[in-house]
Amino acid sequence: MTATQHPPLIAQPQSMHFEQPLRLQSGASIRDYTLAFETYGTLNAQRSNAVLVCHALNASHHVAGVYEGQANSEGWWDNMIGPGKPLDTNQFFVIGVNNLGSCFGSTGPMHVHPDTGRVYGADFPVVTVEDWVNAQALLLDRLGISQLAAVMGGSLGGMQALSWTLQHPERVKHAVVVASAPNLTAENIAFNEVARRAIVTDPDFHGGHFYQHNVVPKRGLRIARMVGHITYLSDDVMNEKFGRQLRDAVVGSATGYRYSTQDVEFQIESYLRYQGDKFSEYFDANTYLLITRALDYFDPAAGFGDNLSAAFARTRAKFLLVSFTTDWRFSPQRSREMVQALLDNQRDVSYAEIDAPHGHDAFLLDDSRYMNVVRSYFERVHQELDGGAA
Amino acid sequence: MTATQHPPLIAQPQSMHFEQPLRLQSGASIRDYTLAFETYGTLNAQRSNAVLVCHALNASHHVAGVYEGQANSEGWWDNMIGPGKPLDTNQFFVIGVNNLGSCFGSTGPMHVHPDTGRVYGADFPVVTVEDWVNAQALLLDRLGISQLAAVMGGSLGGMQALSWTLQHPERVKHAVVVASAPNLTAENIAFNEVARRAIVTDPDFHGGHFYQHNVVPKRGLRIARMVGHITYLSDDVMNEKFGRQLRDAVVGSATGYRYSTQDVEFQIESYLRYQGDKFSEYFDANTYLLITRALDYFDPAAGFGDNLSAAFARTRAKFLLVSFTTDWRFSPQRSREMVQALLDNQRDVSYAEIDAPHGHDAFLLDDSRYMNVVRSYFERVHQELDGGAA
Repeated sequence: MTATQHPPLIAQPQSMHFEQPLRLQSGASIRDYTLAFETYGTLNAQRSNAVLVCHALNASHHVAGVYEGQANSEGWWDNMIGPGKPLDTNQFFVIGVNNLGSCFGSTGPMHVHPDTGRVYGADFPVVTVEDWVNAQALLLDRLGISQLAAVMGGSLGGMQALSWTLQHPERVKHAVVVASAPNLTAENIAFNEVARRAIVTDPDFHGGHFYQHNVVPKRGLRIARMVGHITYLSDDVMNEKFGRQLRDAVVGSATGYRYSTQDVEFQIESYLRYQGDKFSEYFDANTYLLITRALDYFDPAAGFGDNLSAAFARTRAKFLLVSFTTDWRFSPQRSREMVQALLDNQRDVSYAEIDAPHGHDAFLLDDSRYMNVVRSYFERVHQELDGGAA
Repeated sequence: MTATQHPPLIAQPQSMHFEQPLRLQSGASIRDYTLAFETYGTLNAQRSNAVLVCHALNASHHVAGVYEGQANSEGWWDNMIGPGKPLDTNQFFVIGVNNLGSCFGSTGPMHVHPDTGRVYGADFPVVTVEDWVNAQALLLDRLGISQLAAVMGGSLGGMQALSWTLQHPERVKHAVVVASAPNLTAENIAFNEVARRAIVTDPDFHGGHFYQHNVVPKRGLRIARMVGHITYLSDDVMNEKFGRQLRDAVVGSATGYRYSTQDVEFQIESYLRYQGDKFSEYFDANTYLLITRALDYFDPAAGFGDNLSAAFARTRAKFLLVSFTTDWRFSPQRSREMVQALLDNQRDVSYAEIDAPHGHDAFLLDDSRYMNVVRSYFERVHQELDGGAA
């Protein structure tokens, strides 16, 4: 190995409690909440090298590193973030935050509502991308960070990064928006709605108050995850990985089929069932509803007559956008819309369209061109820190 | 109107009972079965002008015309088939057959198993495209039709048309295969599996024996239909029809949102829920499992080392294939594979790739180029009948 070897990055979960109510976009408020977060690297003396990393649907604040003594505990973006990695924690102070309403440590539907003393369940207020960004900003205040060197995210995380540049334009020097979109298409909302209906109509959902029944709407969560998984992959990569392979072909049969409508016949079925089962063991059903709704609702151009260029006029950051050719959930076309709207405002934009076969999932996978694009961009961000160049 | 006016075509449901057991591809048999069918037009003296029309997932033998005195009872392909229409019932004797295992009159899971005296339910044997074609052939025997002028179908119906040319090559002069594929991709199987899991895991499914519990697994059927609907449409047409329109925007709110995870917010949600509800009222859950499995299993090249050209060597028919540019469930690429495999065998093939925005659904919709292609093709089929040219 010629690459520099780094000791493993050890992650330490932290949390911050907030007693001041957070006013939400819906008009509701949430009070007495906690944000779970992690930080990696060191904040410099000027407090200028902080990078906030925002998570997507089923991820968390644990973006990088491993937990001491826990095997297979890598953060969800550990290939991207760490010592010597594209977002280099030797140079940047990286912060991961679990969003409000999620189920990995920040206050969410499975916690107790301070007004009622009962678990929130379906009564947890609807939170939006904008609300998450405001909560993240309050956390940064408490950490003494007035301006981010960069905010970064993929998919729904990319929407948060984008929203930072709109809600707090002076607090963000750079935004890295990967595999994202300025809003969801009807088809995307439709897939979210299928997932939500599967959960809500599961008899074990109990109107969102399943916790006190000691059940979990696992049937619904499984279906939701199966639908999700299909849309995160490309048709091509599914054909390459699974094709029409049978899981356990019947020997001596002309076709190998078992001729069953309920048993697993094809490998792809086995894979999806496994993913669904696994997900239903750890993910909260109300969180799934909340997070898919946040996706549906995000639409910064809506207040500007659907004119994205007008919406982006208040941005001040510089941008890197990345998309993947086979991503049909957040297609390159959606990234190009954002690039165009930023260029219309004479913003400094870099854009990379990566020819990758993996569909939307590509943003989480190793691809040397993708990694190099992000690495180069953060080298530039770092140079600007050092040199003070604008 | 300059077009010729024709009196409405009146359809008459018929049925044929078969006492001889039908041996199925799985090795099981089905006995004492009935096929529901309809015919339109007149069989000529030479019995040479018959056209069999095969149906897809949720359709039936009622392909054209209306039922006497019943408003809105048009057959599912009534825009294509009838007097003066592309498949002209003034020239052809058209036959629609409901497939075994379906729920519109032919023997299916909701009927009584003659061996046990109990409703089949989940014990209805798994049927394949090949089984359906064999049953259709027996019906044609009884109707005294030894050779079809043409067999025609779209989607799963196209698979049956194709299979006719492989199973009974001497009995088919022409095959019209619309929006179809030589097998399903992994992604297609995956969507079918999501639908099946939604049905099977609905507590009201009762292992497929819900009839005796006087319930219907409607939750599962709704989810299945919603998933199906999304995949039948193109992203573009969904954006055009629904976009991000709210069903009932809150007046005086900046966003118009109600901020609810369970209520309908967007028009697309309302549309999908409506389609799901409607479907769950009339479609049989076991039929849905059977028909999606028939789709999964169809793969005529599997017995030829996945070599489609080798599989097609035994065809004798002439072909018209049609695909639609925005159909991502049965994409043009899949039709081109079939065209190439037929050309490899020096077969007579016409192919039209129609630039239509509607996705897979396009095969059921009016599009003048599509209709004209089919019309021209059937004019040729008709001339061959008259002239006796090969």
